[in-house]
Amino acid sequence: MLTTVNDTIIALTTPQGVSALAVIRLSGVDAIKITDKVFVGKKLETQPTHTVHFGTIGIDNPIDEVLVTVFKEPNSFTKENSIEISCHGSPVIVREIIKLFLQQGVRLAEPGEFTRRAFLNGRFDLAQAEAVADLIHAETDNARQAALNQMRGGFSKEIKHLREELIHFASLIELELDFGEEDVEFAGRSDLRNLILKIQSYLARLISSFEQGNVIKNGIPTVIAGKPNAGKSTLLNALLNEERAIVSDIPGTTRDVIEDEMILDGVAFRFMDTAGLRDTSDTIEAIGVSRTRESMKKAALILYLFDLASTTQTEIEAEEAEVKALGIPYIKVGNKVDAASPALLDKIENQDFVFISAASKKNLDILKEAILNQVKISTVKQGDVLVTNLRHFQKLTETHDALTRVLNGLDTGITGDFLAMDIRQSLHHLGEITGQITSEDLLANIFSKFCIGK
Amino acid sequence: MLTTVNDTIIALTTPQGVSALAVIRLSGVDAIKITDKVFVGKKLETQPTHTVHFGTIGIDNPIDEVLVTVFKEPNSFTKENSIEISCHGSPVIVREIIKLFLQQGVRLAEPGEFTRRAFLNGRFDLAQAEAVADLIHAETDNARQAALNQMRGGFSKEIKHLREELIHFASLIELELDFGEEDVEFAGRSDLRNLILKIQSYLARLISSFEQGNVIKNGIPTVIAGKPNAGKSTLLNALLNEERAIVSDIPGTTRDVIEDEMILDGVAFRFMDTAGLRDTSDTIEAIGVSRTRESMKKAALILYLFDLASTTQTEIEAEEAEVKALGIPYIKVGNKVDAASPALLDKIENQDFVFISAASKKNLDILKEAILNQVKISTVKQGDVLVTNLRHFQKLTETHDALTRVLNGLDTGITGDFLAMDIRQSLHHLGEITGQITSEDLLANIFSKFCIGK
Repeated sequence: MLTTVNDTIIALTTPQGVSALAVIRLSGVDAIKITDKVFVGKKLETQPTHTVHFGTIGIDNPIDEVLVTVFKEPNSFTKENSIEISCHGSPVIVREIIKLFLQQGVRLAEPGEFTRRAFLNGRFDLAQAEAVADLIHAETDNARQAALNQMRGGFSKEIKHLREELIHFASLIELELDFGEEDVEFAGRSDLRNLILKIQSYLARLISSFEQGNVIKNGIPTVIAGKPNAGKSTLLNALLNEERAIVSDIPGTTRDVIEDEMILDGVAFRFMDTAGLRDTSDTIEAIGVSRTRESMKKAALILYLFDLASTTQTEIEAEEAEVKALGIPYIKVGNKVDAASPALLDKIENQDFVFISAASKKNLDILKEAILNQVKISTVKQGDVLVTNLRHFQKLTETHDALTRVLNGLDTGITGDFLAMDIRQSLHHLGEITGQITSEDLLANIFSKFCIGK
Repeated sequence: MLTTVNDTIIALTTPQGVSALAVIRLSGVDAIKITDKVFVGKKLETQPTHTVHFGTIGIDNPIDEVLVTVFKEPNSFTKENSIEISCHGSPVIVREIIKLFLQQGVRLAEPGEFTRRAFLNGRFDLAQAEAVADLIHAETDNARQAALNQMRGGFSKEIKHLREELIHFASLIELELDFGEEDVEFAGRSDLRNLILKIQSYLARLISSFEQGNVIKNGIPTVIAGKPNAGKSTLLNALLNEERAIVSDIPGTTRDVIEDEMILDGVAFRFMDTAGLRDTSDTIEAIGVSRTRESMKKAALILYLFDLASTTQTEIEAEEAEVKALGIPYIKVGNKVDAASPALLDKIENQDFVFISAASKKNLDILKEAILNQVKISTVKQGDVLVTNLRHFQKLTETHDALTRVLNGLDTGITGDFLAMDIRQSLHHLGEITGQITSEDLLANIFSKFCIGK
C-alpha cells in the first residue's frame, strides 16, 4: 500500500549554529557511491560498515576537512546505505556541503524521513518510531526515560502478541461463516471472551497510565494566582531563575530556556499564561472574570498567593473560600512574611500556609517541597511502560470500546458475521497503533512533526 | 615550558538545542577506558581505531541508545585517545550523559581545549590552530576558504622554513662572538642581507594581504547615509530581507541571521550602527555631528541616499559635496525615483546615480551590482595564502620591523652582539606566529575565544 522509496536524501542532523562540529546525514541506495564522487580520501564503497575516514569534501576546491562514517545496508538506522559527514560546525560549510550533494542529484530529506524509512524498512513499529520524536523532545529525565522505554519496545511486543491471538479467533469465526447454515462453532465463545477480557485488562492498564504519562510528557499545568500586588510575578521569576541557575551549572549543556517552565525533581511545571492573573489589574476581582476562572479550572495545581503585608484574616478567609470552590488542588502561599503583622501571623500560624518572601527568596525550597508533595510522580524506571502519546491513548481507547461491543455481542448472542465485524474493528485499531495498518495520510501526519534530519 | 596534561575531558561539540543528533566528545588518556564503564555494548578498548559501535549509555538505567566512535592515539584530532558519542539530540540526554561522565572523574573541557591539545601534541602549529576557530566562525564562503587554506598549511610551512634559515645565521653570528677578539666572520654579511630581504619580501606580501583578508573575514563596513526620511531603514530592510530569503531556501541550513549583514557574491557587507544616521533626527545635519562623522569615516563604503521626491538639484549638489569631502568611496543612490519630478530626473539623469525605489524594491539588483563593483574582491581559491588574523598581522609587522633594524645594523656595521640581538628579536616574533615561542598567557588568550567542544 505504501510506496517505499530509496532515493538518496540528505539533511543536517545537528542544530543550526556555530559550533565545534556539525553532522550531515545521507541515506539511500546511492549514498555511499555519491559520497565517493565528492570525497577526497579512501574509496568509501570498498570500506567496511561502521568505519570512519578522514578526508576532504569538495570537487575542485575542498570545502572542509571532514570525517566520514560509512554504514552499509542493512546495518544503519534506516537499514539503507548511509553516510554521516562530521564537518566543522560552520553554517557556511554545512550549506556548501549540502549544496554540493544537491548538485549530485541527492534530495533534501523531509522532516522525519530517516525515521520513516527506518519504520518502513522494519527497524521498529510505528509506536516505536513515534517514541523517537518524543525522546528528542523530552524536557525532563522522566519524559526521556518513558520515551526511551517505548522506543526500545514498550507495549509494542505485547500489543502485537495480543493482536495475533485475536486474529486467530477472527479467522476461526470467519471460517464458521464459510460453513453457512451448518451451525458449527470453531471459535470457542468462552475462550474468546477470556481473551477479550485479557486484552481489555492490558489495554485498561495502558489507558490509565496515560494520565501520568501525559503529565510526564507535557508537564503539570500550574497557575500562580492572587490579588494584585501579591507578588505573583516576583515569585514566578524567583522560581524560574533558581531552576535556570541549577540547569546551567554544566556549561555547554544549558538547554534552551523554556519560558515559564520549571523542573523540580524531574517533573515539569508549566505555568499557564493567564493574562488576568498575571497582570496587576483584573486580578482578585478576576476570580469573578470568567476567562481567568476558566484558566484556573484548567490548572492541575494552583499556587495561591496571599499578600500578608496588607490583608486581614477576614480577607484571607474570603479569598480562600473562592479558591476552594474551584475544587482544584491549591497551595496557600503567605507572601511578604517579613512584612506581616505579628498579630496576623499569630492568628494564621496554625493554618497550612507556606510562608515565603518571594522578593528575598526566603523559603523557596519549602515551597518547592510543598509543590512536589502535591504531585507524587514516581520516577520512571527502565522497562516501565507508560502511554505518553495522545494518538496511542485514543487508539487504545477505541480498541477497548470495540472489544466491549464484541463482549456485548457475545452476551446477546449476535450472529457470527456481526461478531467478526466487531473483532475486525478492534484489530484495525490495534494495528493502527503499531503501524501494521496504516495510510499515507497517517504517516505524513506523524512524521511531519519530526525534526529535519531525523 | 608549557605543561601538557592528558587527563580526560568532555564537552558537547554540536550546538545546543533539540535536533536529530548531538555529539559529545571525550579526549584523554582514559577516554576509552572510562567510556567502557558506562557503555553497554562491545568492549571499546579492544576495538580498532576509527570504528563505530551501537549500544546504550548508562550504568543502571540506560540514558539513550547511542553510536560510539573510537579513536586511538595518535590517530585522533587531539592525538590522544578519543571517543565521540552520537546520541539523540535532546538537551536532557546530553546533560545526563555528561553528568554520568563527570561522576566517573572526567572533567568538563575548557573552550578550545581539544584544539589546544592538538596544537600541544604537534598536530599543527599555532597559526593553523587559530585557523580552526576562523573556519568555524566563517560567515562567507571566501572567509571559509581563507581559513581552510590557513588551517591546512597556509604560510606556516614557509615561515617555518625562513625562520630556520635565519636561525642558521644567528648561530653563526653567535659563534663569531665566542671567538671574541679574533675578528672572524662565519656568517657572510651579504648572504645574511639577501636572506633578510627575501624574508621581508615574503612578509610584505603577507602583510599586504591583510587588507583583503580582513575584509573577507570581517566584512566591509558600510554606512547607509542620507537626510531624514530619505528611506535609509527601508533600503536596509529591503536589502537584508532579500538576502535572507536567498539564504534560507535550503531548509535546515539557514544560518543564524546576523543582524545588519548582507552577503553578496560571498562578500559580507556589515552595516554599521550609526545611531545618528539611522534615526530620523540628527541626520543630514549629522554630517556636522562629530559622532556620526566618525562613523562615516570608519566606513569603507557609503551608500548615500537622496530623496528624489523632495530634494532640489541644488540641495543634491550641496549634499554630495559634503559626502565627497569625506574621501571615502560612496554610491549615489536616488531613492523614491517613482515620485521624482520629471524635471529633476531630466537634470540629473546623466550623473552617476543608481535610481531605485526602496519601498517597492525597484532596481535593488542594479544597486547590488554597483556595490560589488566598488569592492572587487576576488574569490579565494584553494592554496591562496591570505592573512585574516589580526594577531598574525601584528606579529608579521613586528618581524618586518625587527628585520629592518637588522638591515640598518648591517648598513652601519654594528657589532656582532647587537646584530645577534636584533636577529633573535625577529626570530622571537616569527616563532610567536607559529607557536614555537609561546606562553601560557598567549595560549589562554587564544583558546578562550574558541567554542566549548572544539
